[in-house]
Amino acid sequence: MQDKLNLMIPGPTPVPENVLSCMSKHPIGHRSKDFQEIVQKTTEQLKWLHQTTSDVLTITGSGTAAMEAGIINTLSKGDQVICGDNGKFGERWVKVSKAYGLDVKVIKAEWGQPLDPNQFRMMLERDIEKKIKAVILTHSETSTGVINDLKAINNEVKNHGEAITIADCVTSLGACNIPMDEWGIDVIASGSQKGYMIPPGLSFVAMSKRAWEANTVSNLPKFYLDLKQYLNTVNKNSNPFTPAINLYFALEASLTMMQKEGLNNIFTRHARHQKATQEGIKSMGLNLFAKEEFGSPAITAVQPENVDAENIRQSIKNNFDILLAGGQDHLKGKIFRIGHLGFVNDRDIVSVISALESTLDKLGKLNAPIGQGIAKTISVLNNE
Amino acid sequence: MQDKLNLMIPGPTPVPENVLSCMSKHPIGHRSKDFQEIVQKTTEQLKWLHQTTSDVLTITGSGTAAMEAGIINTLSKGDQVICGDNGKFGERWVKVSKAYGLDVKVIKAEWGQPLDPNQFRMMLERDIEKKIKAVILTHSETSTGVINDLKAINNEVKNHGEAITIADCVTSLGACNIPMDEWGIDVIASGSQKGYMIPPGLSFVAMSKRAWEANTVSNLPKFYLDLKQYLNTVNKNSNPFTPAINLYFALEASLTMMQKEGLNNIFTRHARHQKATQEGIKSMGLNLFAKEEFGSPAITAVQPENVDAENIRQSIKNNFDILLAGGQDHLKGKIFRIGHLGFVNDRDIVSVISALESTLDKLGKLNAPIGQGIAKTISVLNNE
Repeated sequence: MQDKLNLMIPGPTPVPENVLSCMSKHPIGHRSKDFQEIVQKTTEQLKWLHQTTSDVLTITGSGTAAMEAGIINTLSKGDQVICGDNGKFGERWVKVSKAYGLDVKVIKAEWGQPLDPNQFRMMLERDIEKKIKAVILTHSETSTGVINDLKAINNEVKNHGEAITIADCVTSLGACNIPMDEWGIDVIASGSQKGYMIPPGLSFVAMSKRAWEANTVSNLPKFYLDLKQYLNTVNKNSNPFTPAINLYFALEASLTMMQKEGLNNIFTRHARHQKATQEGIKSMGLNLFAKEEFGSPAITAVQPENVDAENIRQSIKNNFDILLAGGQDHLKGKIFRIGHLGFVNDRDIVSVISALESTLDKLGKLNAPIGQGIAKTISVLNNE
Repeated sequence: MQDKLNLMIPGPTPVPENVLSCMSKHPIGHRSKDFQEIVQKTTEQLKWLHQTTSDVLTITGSGTAAMEAGIINTLSKGDQVICGDNGKFGERWVKVSKAYGLDVKVIKAEWGQPLDPNQFRMMLERDIEKKIKAVILTHSETSTGVINDLKAINNEVKNHGEAITIADCVTSLGACNIPMDEWGIDVIASGSQKGYMIPPGLSFVAMSKRAWEANTVSNLPKFYLDLKQYLNTVNKNSNPFTPAINLYFALEASLTMMQKEGLNNIFTRHARHQKATQEGIKSMGLNLFAKEEFGSPAITAVQPENVDAENIRQSIKNNFDILLAGGQDHLKGKIFRIGHLGFVNDRDIVSVISALESTLDKLGKLNAPIGQGIAKTISVLNNE
């Protein structure tokens, strides 16, 4: 049905109606007192979301801009860094690091597998001269639905003593617990069209004291992404450049909703939906692309057998107006991905699982009694 | 009156209601066919607006991001460039150029004065070794309401033969005639919250063939602002990174409105409003900060005598709900600026001139018979 599409992709995620309404307010002057109040309020709310007393800066740009900002504001040309790479976004941070002339050591895992914290430990332990300046990794790898063990890898970085951790938490922040200060993470990058429940266009960089110390010796060239300019202006509740004002209206509304729900409730909701999705998928005879224990709370990747994943995706879009994500690069046609991130309720979960069973049945590819998948999903939702 | 503020600042500018409505549509997937159609359509519309067959690329970011992209995608470390500097934005391009290690020669003019094309000619003529790679300048200097003679300066660059012109047309594009191909301008940067009549968050870079040739040898590091990535994806009607989807909805609507009005009508409207504003200001005994012949079609800066410009600005906001811009840096309190850029009609012009007369009268600072200013404004509007 025209104009009744439900986005169950890993971003943009569903946007609440009252957040959408804010988007259509007339912009106000970005140097006005009214706008300063919004910057002040959202900055406090962002600190709450990041569980930190550190600065959280807002950039008009995509999550990649925020992640690039974290890298180029803390490092210098020739610096040794470790990049974790087990998917499309891990690959991207390798490219960014190389574009700026960093000396990149890559720790890889197969797409669908998590990064191994032991490999980070070994590489960091061997670095007795303390030449490694940063460990750069993706927490929730959107391309594969795998969550990496950020806490364990960050602990290895802490043991190293010199390096900082720069974490892409674009699809994990607001989906699972990432206590920035408690874990001692130095840089966290995220984007608006994910757990934040607002349209794309804003991104966020949280910077610890240690990250700012690294900033004092960082010499990579930048201007629009120069975080010192954002720090200097956020302290005056402002921005260095004209920001996406309407997205700030939306941000204020969505963070207020999130505060009302509460962090623990948000995390519990995501974990419950993740489990209900995983169990439903398995019970209808489909394979999870990533093992359950490494599954992201934001997205579940499914690897169907004997049927093109794109067929399933197209059919579910045409018949049920549910948009799923396809596989990227070599996984195109091999997997599809179900987003359960942000403004997602039980109805979304039961509808996608039911629609999947129906679709497989229609394609003659359902390898389980019809109803077995949704029965399991309902059981998880009723008991978790 | 609460929520009835009219923005007459140089950006954000007034946004039409049907454009605001587009902002509150639910985002669609940025890899969907529906979104590709929007990218394809807006790209064609942008070429129309720029009067070019060259590529026009859309970045999620401010005008500064677009201008920085123009600079860092065409130049290399140590390259000699000339920066024109006669206001806050000219100053900014000097800073950007220095941040990337360019060898910057600055041609200055006093704030309120235009850049002198002869100075560019002389400096370019002296460069017999053809070391100067670019001339970087602001067309309409938002901080002072001065328009620089982009055509004449660009002609000097053409005579040089080696350098390219990188022009900040943020507050001139969509306000006056800038035929990119006819004049042979290489890079034009602009931003959404100006003549485009949409909220801030998108910016645009138009790149000529010569600019792309310069790109092949450019070695400055970049990733989010790497225009080759935008070129590769725009050819597939897509973006390299998740763009501000809702601003694209708005962009499509506003460019469609602009096409309906027609380029010449848009330029004539701006010229007429500029003249009606300038004449009204003079007739009420106020001083124009920039001489009329150098006045920007987007903004008129006013330098009142014996009264703090901020008092006038505050009073007109409190009593008439019209937001004017103040002076920046050393001009704070000395000038105020009237934006007449974008979605502006005759009502906006007569209301701001009337409100100004009323405000000066109330402050006891009106140096002409009351009504003389608006009479002149009306006369211009009726006869131009």
